[in-house]
Amino acid sequence: MPRLSAEEARRRFAHAQVARLATVGPGAVPHLVPVVFAVDGDEICTVVDAKPKAGGVLARLRNVTERPAVSLLADEYDPDWSRLWWVRADGLGRVVESGPERERAVHLLTARYPQYAALEGGFGAALIVRVARWQGWAMRRPEEVGER
Amino acid sequence: MPRLSAEEARRRFAHAQVARLATVGPGAVPHLVPVVFAVDGDEICTVVDAKPKAGGVLARLRNVTERPAVSLLADEYDPDWSRLWWVRADGLGRVVESGPERERAVHLLTARYPQYAALEGGFGAALIVRVARWQGWAMRRPEEVGER
Repeated sequence: MPRLSAEEARRRFAHAQVARLATVGPGAVPHLVPVVFAVDGDEICTVVDAKPKAGGVLARLRNVTERPAVSLLADEYDPDWSRLWWVRADGLGRVVESGPERERAVHLLTARYPQYAALEGGFGAALIVRVARWQGWAMRRPEEVGER
Repeated sequence: MPRLSAEEARRRFAHAQVARLATVGPGAVPHLVPVVFAVDGDEICTVVDAKPKAGGVLARLRNVTERPAVSLLADEYDPDWSRLWWVRADGLGRVVESGPERERAVHLLTARYPQYAALEGGFGAALIVRVARWQGWAMRRPEEVGER
């Protein structure tokens, strides 16, 4: 499967609507959740919902605090396999509970997803990933399918 | 987000066309790839492409051999967030290089994905996951959206 340039990989990731976030728990057990996100340069911003009264700390936040290496994946599946592509972003995550960095993340997310306006409960912590490597693969290269 | 029953979670996962597989590499670094798959009871079967001449062992196979805990995620994104759902399957993976278990996996995959008929190079090892826990969440429960 042909490899995309890092720039093209980042571009495709940034335009995806959903990604999957993998973190690692105790005992080398991976943990996976889908996330909505916004890309800002080489950072990927996500924000968790406000903590429910009965809830503990979310596994992804606990994991990132203890083991910061994370991986995110955006992919497009199509029954026509010549249209498949996927992008993986590997880097280090950090949990930001408050302050201007979290505000930036909330701003980017609410600007990108108007759906947040209807959600109740507000926002919790931001989970921000500094991407060290953007890698992408596509069955067809952009020029073959007329994409910019 | 309301939780689905394990049975409903498994059913939705089994009908998805693509999932994402998380394994763990050395140093608690997660590794993510999209996979096509087939569910057989409480096992998820995937098969890698035949090893390219210049390639080493794929990271996912190396990781599973050394650290068998894996997680797979199937999710459906929709701009209408009331339609979101996702299912996570956690379990232990094993690499099967040859024999009847691998043949079963190849059979299930080729039966499910006619696209394989056009792929060149043939099949490599099977990666089979024994699922210990099916967990799913959906904004709306099946009865609300008329799904069976």
